[in-house]
Amino acid sequence: MKTVSTARSHGGTQGVYSHASSACRCDMTFAVFVPPQAAKAPCPVLWYLSGLTCTHANVMDKGEYRRMAAELGLIVVCPDTSPRGGDVPDEPDNWQFGKGAGFYVDATEAPFSRNYRMYSYVIEELPRLIAENFPADMDRQGVFGHSMGGHGALTLALRNPDRFRSCSAFAPIVEPSTAGWSKGALEKYLGGDRSAWRAHDACALVEDGHRFDAFLIDQGSADGFLDEGLRPWLFEAACRKAGIPLTLNMRDGYDHSYFFISTFMDDHLAWHAARLQTR
Amino acid sequence: MKTVSTARSHGGTQGVYSHASSACRCDMTFAVFVPPQAAKAPCPVLWYLSGLTCTHANVMDKGEYRRMAAELGLIVVCPDTSPRGGDVPDEPDNWQFGKGAGFYVDATEAPFSRNYRMYSYVIEELPRLIAENFPADMDRQGVFGHSMGGHGALTLALRNPDRFRSCSAFAPIVEPSTAGWSKGALEKYLGGDRSAWRAHDACALVEDGHRFDAFLIDQGSADGFLDEGLRPWLFEAACRKAGIPLTLNMRDGYDHSYFFISTFMDDHLAWHAARLQTR
Repeated sequence: MKTVSTARSHGGTQGVYSHASSACRCDMTFAVFVPPQAAKAPCPVLWYLSGLTCTHANVMDKGEYRRMAAELGLIVVCPDTSPRGGDVPDEPDNWQFGKGAGFYVDATEAPFSRNYRMYSYVIEELPRLIAENFPADMDRQGVFGHSMGGHGALTLALRNPDRFRSCSAFAPIVEPSTAGWSKGALEKYLGGDRSAWRAHDACALVEDGHRFDAFLIDQGSADGFLDEGLRPWLFEAACRKAGIPLTLNMRDGYDHSYFFISTFMDDHLAWHAARLQTR
Repeated sequence: MKTVSTARSHGGTQGVYSHASSACRCDMTFAVFVPPQAAKAPCPVLWYLSGLTCTHANVMDKGEYRRMAAELGLIVVCPDTSPRGGDVPDEPDNWQFGKGAGFYVDATEAPFSRNYRMYSYVIEELPRLIAENFPADMDRQGVFGHSMGGHGALTLALRNPDRFRSCSAFAPIVEPSTAGWSKGALEKYLGGDRSAWRAHDACALVEDGHRFDAFLIDQGSADGFLDEGLRPWLFEAACRKAGIPLTLNMRDGYDHSYFFISTFMDDHLAWHAARLQTR
């Protein structure tokens, strides 16, 4: 692991790091905020998964999470959204697939299966690196994210309820199998057999019996992707049927941007801290 | 004035606007945050002046000012740092001069005097536009900024104590006439006669009898520009001699970045609000 940069912020340290990823077979960059409390004892780890087109840097620059994470004593890890580099197959003109659009799956289809293994990267490889290199209490992990990263958070939590104690999302893609901007990517990564997509679709996972303690979702009412791509009511219906508590806040007039995310960041950090602060 | 974008954030509205500037003879872009309180009554206006290489967008994206500005009821206006566009003379390889480096002066030297009139732009033209188009109480204005923009804030306040009720700065260039990264720009904008530079140098302005109620400065101890470019102790000495109250906070381990600025943003907003909230 190589340190790209560190800066003191809100009493903690915001760092950017890179490493040669075995899961993705390329160099990967990620951001970690370590709060001041970590100087005394290991802190819980909160994973933030970003949306389409983003790198680790978008939420680091615009997410406004450090003040409250420093107050609550949370380590915040922000991975990239896909493999990177000249050797990674891509569709440069397609922002909904390839680089910047890994969808947190392990691709099974050539040529993408060689590098596009963001599920294994986020669930296996990067946690090992965090555990080895940061004052992290890996028994206390939460996950949240935005849009495609909200999809990532919901599906990772539903598939790994013993790993994550808490989960929330900003404007998540709750049913990527049927949303216009995601089903094309699932087909290219996972093939034409839609039954394989269900393990990467939050609504389908709930229908198929996966469970999680509780979810928090914030969604802007003025989000241009709401009706076609996001449709939180589908997940609301699935959770209601399954008896999973879901707090879904529709936020009047808010859009899909970090101006929206940063507004409700404190609420989400508090949601996670309430579930992560007890040993 | 043209609306480039607006987004709801922290209960208010973060907008980006452009207009044909008569002062700079080019199109100029700026950002304005309007807090929720402005729906009921005009709000005070706080000007944030950015540093070298920045546009309006850096602090809008990374400054983390909206949460507290919304709480305190402050309009925050973020101008660009120089004229822009293909017709504006520039030294593209020099980040300390030309585009992105207007230094908040009215240039007197050709060919820069045609466009580089950021002093008139920020003091005259943009305030008129703000007064006409936003729910702003122009009797209550404050100014702050970072680095070159901290220089801008200090010098604008010292030259216009009746305009601004409050002033603060993050890591300001307090004596640009003698700092390596600024004296070259002053010479190109204002000519070789250094007596003309004194009106744009905070230390010289204080020496020459300009006064202001009080200043707040935060400065990171790990700022790579501290010793050569910033040297807040020069301003501290000038203020002490002149009897101007200065609160200078040296912040251990902080650098020159927005990771530093955002950490102390709340303190600065509270400083201004305390001086702007009374009619």
